[in-house]
Amino acid sequence: MIKAAVIGATGYSGATLISILANHKDVEIVGLTSKSYVGKKFSDIYKNFKGIVELELEEQNLPEISKKTDVIFVCLPHGIASNEVTQEVLNNSKVIDLGADFRLKDKNCYEAWYKVEHKGEDVLAGAVYGLPEWNEEKIKTAKLIANPGCYATASILTVAPLLKEGLVNSNDIVIDAKSGVSGAGRSLDLSVHFCECNETIKPYKIATHRHTPEIEQVLSDISGVNVLLNFQPHLVPMNRGILACAYLKPTKDVSLDELKEVYKKYYQNKAFIRVLEGDEAPETKWTKGSNYCDINVFKDRRTGRILAFGALDNLVKGAAGQAVQNMNIMFNLDETSGLKNNTVFP
Amino acid sequence: MIKAAVIGATGYSGATLISILANHKDVEIVGLTSKSYVGKKFSDIYKNFKGIVELELEEQNLPEISKKTDVIFVCLPHGIASNEVTQEVLNNSKVIDLGADFRLKDKNCYEAWYKVEHKGEDVLAGAVYGLPEWNEEKIKTAKLIANPGCYATASILTVAPLLKEGLVNSNDIVIDAKSGVSGAGRSLDLSVHFCECNETIKPYKIATHRHTPEIEQVLSDISGVNVLLNFQPHLVPMNRGILACAYLKPTKDVSLDELKEVYKKYYQNKAFIRVLEGDEAPETKWTKGSNYCDINVFKDRRTGRILAFGALDNLVKGAAGQAVQNMNIMFNLDETSGLKNNTVFP
Amino acid sequence: MIKAAVIGATGYSGATLISILANHKDVEIVGLTSKSYVGKKFSDIYKNFKGIVELELEEQNLPEISKKTDVIFVCLPHGIASNEVTQEVLNNSKVIDLGADFRLKDKNCYEAWYKVEHKGEDVLAGAVYGLPEWNEEKIKTAKLIANPGCYATASILTVAPLLKEGLVNSNDIVIDAKSGVSGAGRSLDLSVHFCECNETIKPYKIATHRHTPEIEQVLSDISGVNVLLNFQPHLVPMNRGILACAYLKPTKDVSLDELKEVYKKYYQNKAFIRVLEGDEAPETKWTKGSNYCDINVFKDRRTGRILAFGALDNLVKGAAGQAVQNMNIMFNLDETSGLKNNTVFP
Amino acid sequence: MIKAAVIGATGYSGATLISILANHKDVEIVGLTSKSYVGKKFSDIYKNFKGIVELELEEQNLPEISKKTDVIFVCLPHGIASNEVTQEVLNNSKVIDLGADFRLKDKNCYEAWYKVEHKGEDVLAGAVYGLPEWNEEKIKTAKLIANPGCYATASILTVAPLLKEGLVNSNDIVIDAKSGVSGAGRSLDLSVHFCECNETIKPYKIATHRHTPEIEQVLSDISGVNVLLNFQPHLVPMNRGILACAYLKPTKDVSLDELKEVYKKYYQNKAFIRVLEGDEAPETKWTKGSNYCDINVFKDRRTGRILAFGALDNLVKGAAGQAVQNMNIMFNLDETSGLKNNTVFP
Repeated sequence: MIKAAVIGATGYSGATLISILANHKDVEIVGLTSKSYVGKKFSDIYKNFKGIVELELEEQNLPEISKKTDVIFVCLPHGIASNEVTQEVLNNSKVIDLGADFRLKDKNCYEAWYKVEHKGEDVLAGAVYGLPEWNEEKIKTAKLIANPGCYATASILTVAPLLKEGLVNSNDIVIDAKSGVSGAGRSLDLSVHFCECNETIKPYKIATHRHTPEIEQVLSDISGVNVLLNFQPHLVPMNRGILACAYLKPTKDVSLDELKEVYKKYYQNKAFIRVLEGDEAPETKWTKGSNYCDINVFKDRRTGRILAFGALDNLVKGAAGQAVQNMNIMFNLDETSGLKNNTVFP
Repeated sequence: MIKAAVIGATGYSGATLISILANHKDVEIVGLTSKSYVGKKFSDIYKNFKGIVELELEEQNLPEISKKTDVIFVCLPHGIASNEVTQEVLNNSKVIDLGADFRLKDKNCYEAWYKVEHKGEDVLAGAVYGLPEWNEEKIKTAKLIANPGCYATASILTVAPLLKEGLVNSNDIVIDAKSGVSGAGRSLDLSVHFCECNETIKPYKIATHRHTPEIEQVLSDISGVNVLLNFQPHLVPMNRGILACAYLKPTKDVSLDELKEVYKKYYQNKAFIRVLEGDEAPETKWTKGSNYCDINVFKDRRTGRILAFGALDNLVKGAAGQAVQNMNIMFNLDETSGLKNNTVFP
Repeated sequence: MIKAAVIGATGYSGATLISILANHKDVEIVGLTSKSYVGKKFSDIYKNFKGIVELELEEQNLPEISKKTDVIFVCLPHGIASNEVTQEVLNNSKVIDLGADFRLKDKNCYEAWYKVEHKGEDVLAGAVYGLPEWNEEKIKTAKLIANPGCYATASILTVAPLLKEGLVNSNDIVIDAKSGVSGAGRSLDLSVHFCECNETIKPYKIATHRHTPEIEQVLSDISGVNVLLNFQPHLVPMNRGILACAYLKPTKDVSLDELKEVYKKYYQNKAFIRVLEGDEAPETKWTKGSNYCDINVFKDRRTGRILAFGALDNLVKGAAGQAVQNMNIMFNLDETSGLKNNTVFP
Repeated sequence: MIKAAVIGATGYSGATLISILANHKDVEIVGLTSKSYVGKKFSDIYKNFKGIVELELEEQNLPEISKKTDVIFVCLPHGIASNEVTQEVLNNSKVIDLGADFRLKDKNCYEAWYKVEHKGEDVLAGAVYGLPEWNEEKIKTAKLIANPGCYATASILTVAPLLKEGLVNSNDIVIDAKSGVSGAGRSLDLSVHFCECNETIKPYKIATHRHTPEIEQVLSDISGVNVLLNFQPHLVPMNRGILACAYLKPTKDVSLDELKEVYKKYYQNKAFIRVLEGDEAPETKWTKGSNYCDINVFKDRRTGRILAFGALDNLVKGAAGQAVQNMNIMFNLDETSGLKNNTVFP
């Protein structure tokens, strides 16, 4: 059994992670930590876990916890993990960080976008970006995984095949993305008050969302060219789900069939990517609760633009599910272990 | 492996059942039927099942299907199962009917409330009401299970211990219940148009809901006295969940502690009942996706009334989950097999 | 023109009040106050008012504001108005308090339920309960109006005719009520986080909600007998609306027609009560944005119970609309002035 | 008093129109028609209108109705108005068509996108596109108004100033739009079943939405150059609201201040356009119930792209409110008559 701990267990990503780990036949949860609720039972905070997970929340002491774990999942706000995930911790335990601190390779880029100093530069160098569909080999041997952002996962998976094949212009891309409210976390803020986000839609962080450099970095790595794009998120009145809509310019004449083939080439053997048939539109509801990302590609015959859409559950493939997928790969388990057949609709 | 088929696979109960069965280690789904979608793949109707369940929808031929199954789950509108679940079918396969046709023992009562003739009177006599917490022994040997109604499950579980102990008046009970929209099924009707049921709450079937005689029959059986009550449902703008709120009159002076003890007495060994502590209020969100029913009891010191609340997921404990729980018992499996640790929040 | 000010302008009741007053042909808004946003424009907080109401938010100084106003609407948390609405203020201006401080006549009862000292006992004695359908004469000459609570308005209007006529038992009443989230106000709390109250329903303040003594007091006044009842609120995932469902016991044999006649007797000349026909169920959506309360009464022929349902918009008839209705009466205007024909659906 | 009739009164646009007309001091509603509900009272279908509008629904006979009206509002599915709005009707009464039949000047273009023959070519020639902010002079003298589509209104208002000034490339435009469910109308369809569109977001009519040629035609007219663009709609789980997000390429170096100035130049005197300040994001909630369109423009300094966002209420500025605005202009009334100060939040 893999001994696992979750740091920051009481956020939505942490709770989703725990629900997956509790069902994972090869995992034993040995520790849950919290800043606000130390000493309380996890199931007193998330009452859905009564009778399922009855652990008490501990102090957030990574060096101690690392001594008793094989893997630590870190679900903390940015700027904290980079301090806490030290080489000492990594000597004891593998770490999968669901936050942003180890995603950007360039410390300066991180500091420019996140407005905090990055104090874990030594550790950062060894971090592996945990997007299994494009980085599986490195994940296998990683000690520290930077689990991709929810928007980044949806965006990268949706456009990567086209960029990799050089079929679309790398600096003329618009990604218009839409997310459910759980993406904003469980912290209190007027913007997540029910009456303020119900029955409305809005763009936010206009031209400034922090997943932008992450998407560009990873797509540049995959394609081998410098990718520059517009990423624009919106808040949708629903609990879960992300939809990424990419507007792309072809670099040459390419048919819809050829576009579809490219997606199949890269994804047909990927357990968690479903390339949809015909003109089926990805919808977030079909991915709710599961680790799937549903993708489809279209061509506008009038303007010549290529449209690609990707939908996923921000808490699963966009966070906790992908983290477990990474763990499975790191521990040489079936990639889908604990992640199969989960689906919730309606 | 238990060979199972689902008749009426494309309603919400059917689809939820399939998601549970697909994860059940002792079950093989060998047939799915539909009236409207014969020849299509189930996953073309419910696209969340792409890659999970790829069976094609067959004709709804129970005699044929019963030859290849150990258990048939029937998810049909009332008035149909009573014709189709014949003795011939039952000779071949066990049947769990999620509809209403075998719940009321009295054919006349059924016909008075459901306004259709009951043509399966011979079969009706052998049907067992599938509420495991109160009827486990009979379920073990049953050939035909009448799976309880969603409202009935929530209502009965919430008040049965008090009636069983004679602590509350049996003919002075109000149950005010609230349900998400999936309870109304997937059929098209103005009442389930998004704009018509979003942002509103309403009572419906005032003093005439068909789960009323079912609740009364079962509570009368359990308590040994004739139960007469008001049951009033409401439609709530959410996908899933039922909350039953019971207003009861004590028959004698009883403390809150004694009331709590009664619930523990009957439910502490029940896998899927969680009697909440202190003044915790049951909320449907904590039961979403799971087979749990959360219950708590209160006493109004001013009026003397006893208040009991029960919350569950109408598609799981109120339908598909309970059906699988019944199957587990009928096939001598662990009652919780395939039903453990499922929880979805937010 | 009536010079009006709103104290506590930036809560949901305050904002709704301002939207009604801005359309009232006989009213000029001369002041808006806030605790948190002094110096900001009201339309910077509620951006829907850009181009409609451009006043700046002032300090909450009632003595000063009372010098320039004919009427002050007070929208403050309980425990504050009783300090601030002094005799001095009332000498200058009429006051309509939308909070709870002047609703309960008995200081001790107030302090027992609200857990704060009531410091305005002198003023309390002269306060008039502002439910126009039952108290119009006193409202006409009042200096200080205690505007009814949202739940209280729905509950009282729904059952008062039956109690007034002595048709129902006065100490055997259950009112099960359901409210949208705006009833909880705009303050930050985990219970109003979108993901925590979306897709769920729950009871709250079980057997302890503060509108209980208010409902009992007013119904006792109306009926002339001592009313004792159970009032139980629930939170529904919608922005607006309250539904009150009353379960009553007849004191004598009475037909449905007679019950309907009683409602018509008291309400047919009331501008804002719509007694529905036949078996139409009140739904909150039909009252959204309007000052109407929709009511209907039913009889359960099986149990003999009488069921009465009332629906209204908690921010309009349950708060701001009723306050303006009171103002209209106090200033000898048409009761419906500024309140006619407002309806929003879907 | 202007005598007005509404053809197709029982759709969401029709009902919203009636709520505005009922409050318009210069209008008398003299007729409401329906296909499905002839002989019923309008307020039996939309119960919010009980006590407000009690007219009976008539047969849909335009020649007859035109004899008693000054203006007819037509709210019919496409393909019908083009048959029914004849020269004879127009000789009797002005007509404002809220449907699509008279929006596209080119019969062939209409037939290519709408897949029905256009039988009203003679009348089409005289139709005026009713977007007052850009076409007021022609509206003043029009007999027949083609009221713009909801998406078209949001899209055109959002990008027209930039195109008019030649500041953005006319054939490299992406408009990603999001709409509430009322935009899909009141007809029954699985896609508007509550459980199917709640808690999800999806793109639809990918690269094929019929408002595309309308947007292009009008923007081409305004700018004097041929506009070719991608328009992509999405369905959002909310009742009302449209958000249009435009991604544009500058034709020359232009500062954010200059961009803002362009919007002010065209819109500062327009009663129903609010150009937001600073980095305020348009949100649909701030426009709910009102005839406003809120707009703001941004510049992405990294990519150089210009982003413009527009939000409105699809049933008001996107349909019924704009129709009344057109009527006001046609009858030489204040443009804002009946449309002022309406706002609903939360």
